[in-house]
Amino acid sequence: MKHLNRRDFLRAATATAAAGLVAGCATTNPQSANIWTPKQQGQSVIGLIAPKMDVVRVGFIGVGQRGYGHVKRMSYIDGAEIVAIADPHQEVLERSSKFLTDNGHQQPALYGGGDYAYREMLNRQDIDIVIISTPWKWHAPMAIDTMESGKHAFVEVPLAVTVEEMWAIVDTAERTQKNCMMMENVNYGRDELMVLNMVRQGLFGELLHGEAAYIHELRWQMKEIDHKTGSWRTQWHAKQNGNLYPTHGLGPVSQYMNINRGDRFDYLTSVSSPALGRAAYAKREFAADHQRNQLKYINGDMSTTLIKTVNGRSIMVQHDTTTPRPYSRHNLIQGTNGVFAGFPNRIALEEGGSGNFHEWDYEMDAWYDKYDHPLWQKMGKEAERNGGHGGMDFLMFWRMIYCLRNGEALDQDVYDGAAWSVITPLSAQSVNNRSQSVDIPDFTRGAWKNATPLGIVGA
Amino acid sequence: MKHLNRRDFLRAATATAAAGLVAGCATTNPQSANIWTPKQQGQSVIGLIAPKMDVVRVGFIGVGQRGYGHVKRMSYIDGAEIVAIADPHQEVLERSSKFLTDNGHQQPALYGGGDYAYREMLNRQDIDIVIISTPWKWHAPMAIDTMESGKHAFVEVPLAVTVEEMWAIVDTAERTQKNCMMMENVNYGRDELMVLNMVRQGLFGELLHGEAAYIHELRWQMKEIDHKTGSWRTQWHAKQNGNLYPTHGLGPVSQYMNINRGDRFDYLTSVSSPALGRAAYAKREFAADHQRNQLKYINGDMSTTLIKTVNGRSIMVQHDTTTPRPYSRHNLIQGTNGVFAGFPNRIALEEGGSGNFHEWDYEMDAWYDKYDHPLWQKMGKEAERNGGHGGMDFLMFWRMIYCLRNGEALDQDVYDGAAWSVITPLSAQSVNNRSQSVDIPDFTRGAWKNATPLGIVGA
Repeated sequence: MKHLNRRDFLRAATATAAAGLVAGCATTNPQSANIWTPKQQGQSVIGLIAPKMDVVRVGFIGVGQRGYGHVKRMSYIDGAEIVAIADPHQEVLERSSKFLTDNGHQQPALYGGGDYAYREMLNRQDIDIVIISTPWKWHAPMAIDTMESGKHAFVEVPLAVTVEEMWAIVDTAERTQKNCMMMENVNYGRDELMVLNMVRQGLFGELLHGEAAYIHELRWQMKEIDHKTGSWRTQWHAKQNGNLYPTHGLGPVSQYMNINRGDRFDYLTSVSSPALGRAAYAKREFAADHQRNQLKYINGDMSTTLIKTVNGRSIMVQHDTTTPRPYSRHNLIQGTNGVFAGFPNRIALEEGGSGNFHEWDYEMDAWYDKYDHPLWQKMGKEAERNGGHGGMDFLMFWRMIYCLRNGEALDQDVYDGAAWSVITPLSAQSVNNRSQSVDIPDFTRGAWKNATPLGIVGA
Repeated sequence: MKHLNRRDFLRAATATAAAGLVAGCATTNPQSANIWTPKQQGQSVIGLIAPKMDVVRVGFIGVGQRGYGHVKRMSYIDGAEIVAIADPHQEVLERSSKFLTDNGHQQPALYGGGDYAYREMLNRQDIDIVIISTPWKWHAPMAIDTMESGKHAFVEVPLAVTVEEMWAIVDTAERTQKNCMMMENVNYGRDELMVLNMVRQGLFGELLHGEAAYIHELRWQMKEIDHKTGSWRTQWHAKQNGNLYPTHGLGPVSQYMNINRGDRFDYLTSVSSPALGRAAYAKREFAADHQRNQLKYINGDMSTTLIKTVNGRSIMVQHDTTTPRPYSRHNLIQGTNGVFAGFPNRIALEEGGSGNFHEWDYEMDAWYDKYDHPLWQKMGKEAERNGGHGGMDFLMFWRMIYCLRNGEALDQDVYDGAAWSVITPLSAQSVNNRSQSVDIPDFTRGAWKNATPLGIVGA
């Protein structure tokens, strides 16, 4: 395994610096920045298979909220061994350590005391993969450092926050030939897996249109001031105006449509509503001089983005974490033979359904019996027992470890994470230009044309 | 009343010819064509009140399908007198005449024998208003001819099909000071009226976002070859690629948002899915050499358009009359205090609702009891008895006649019809330019700024 040295960090740092420059012109001239494709530094990692691992030795960066749940889930999985944990917050570091020792696992090495202690952890030679669950702005540098240190990176959503960070991550993955998977757990939900299975069997005919969303009222997170998600996520509503969190809805729809595996995102256009909810909430819930009342919230409460694919399909993606609405990810896929929609689940087909596509069929049990995904049939019960959003988190971890131990390609690659995450900066560009359409970079550099649909078929 | 003469017809014809030229450049340079505002020929007709009529004398152009229903409904309304009917199709002309005489009404004068026989009818001096229910391409010339002949025009949706036709109609209405109302019946649906009432009472807080649609599987109309809607509507799917029929969903949402009365449409962007369903249906249902298999269907099966208003609100509008899906108009309105969505009706509010906005409330009866629109409370039962889409058609006619007899402004004016209908040509422009955003003309020429919200408050 390659040893992490000063040169590697400098290289990573340079990549980030270069990215910074491009970021500047991106805001002034979106189109030219987006069609700019950096020189490839290595080989494509589509279908990358890492050398089989008997035991997968795991390191964690960030175990505050989401990361702590990941430590627990990983501890349930055969063939995974948690070796080390890094987090600048001593309290959460010890909480994870205690959970592991209390449950008969070995004491992990702990790296606290500073934002960059994780780099000391990356110097270890006994770690195969690193799980990164940190604030969004840290995803890119930590993923790049992880790969530069010779380890595979698994990053919480989003993969990164700027076009240039996406390229820096893709280039690093191709140069180091390491996996960098954005952990989109929703692709492992029972319904999403079933719909993927139905799509693969052609139940909806030729796919035409999809809809995705992250409609989840999270104003309450604004009360998290010093620690937890709201302490940093709230700032994003004052930084840019677009879709801040596209991947949970877009991941499954992209897999239905074989994005990056026969099709790809071509361009997008985006419109935002006024941004009123966060300021009103701050005014209602905090003192006039509270920092929450000092921020200027510019992110439209409802963001709606339209994506066109090279094969001509359309996708609508929405984001709203502010207004009082019931939770929804939409999860709609529509083809020439009918449509599935989620929240609540319902289906209408011309052939192979109730025989009347004018009425929604809300009864899912018969559909589960017939079309539950093989992965869910095999692991669903155990996934539900071990929890995490109805089992999707456990199932994702189970698949990650399964693929690494059995010499299979991962279900999601660095190009998927980049394509699904880049919607955030590009939707903001479109909103800032009277919804002018914006080209979406091809992070695969043409490899999407010959990549075979992957999906989750190896279960 | 002004007599219709050859000069008037020439003037109308010239307007249309001029329009033709602009249409040409519109396709090559959408933006410049859309911001082009012709010289005003008269005074604004916002809030126009026609001289009170004791009895409203009605003429009909087009009584094939929709128009025949309108004849029946109009015959139920006190103070309306059906004087004459024009339709080139003798059979339907006599069917309407027979219905009237069988039901104790006077024998109307009939104008058949040719597409332009309606102009003979317009020469009459004993007609106050004309109801136009003809193929879309006839709406503009017939509405213009009607106003030029000194009569008020009431046109089926859409008002017209090109930007230039919209301007020609607006200019004619302003020059002649006649009403030209596009008859958007959905604005008179019980649910739409209740939501309008709730919006006016501030139940949703500050409005942010709306959603509208016309999702209605109509492939079967392709079997109407010589007569009926499908005989001409089918051709539109081979003519342009955009939202062919936006007004049913957009009308109510526009009234919730006071479009043209304090706000207006600023720009739009549109994306279409592939167009596969019509060709597949033709192949399945018709012989290989049938005319339905000769057409090249280019209109995307699912069209999604995003509209931004000058006050910053967003509206999503969809069109799909091809794929096998249950019917929907979406009818979603979202504000800082919550959301209403239709199909099925459901509501979630932070204040003034169930107390839990995380769950949809599907039980509408309590909401009807509390918020049914005054117009529905007064006329709903009679409207339902007299039918037509759950009473909305009757209610619309009742309001038209009520306003004309009582010297009130109509609920919808020529600017509303133009703004709601222009989405069709502009969405096609956007689709043809990689979803580049397209400016939406201000048909009110600035009068929207001071117009007071009208809605349907005078019931």
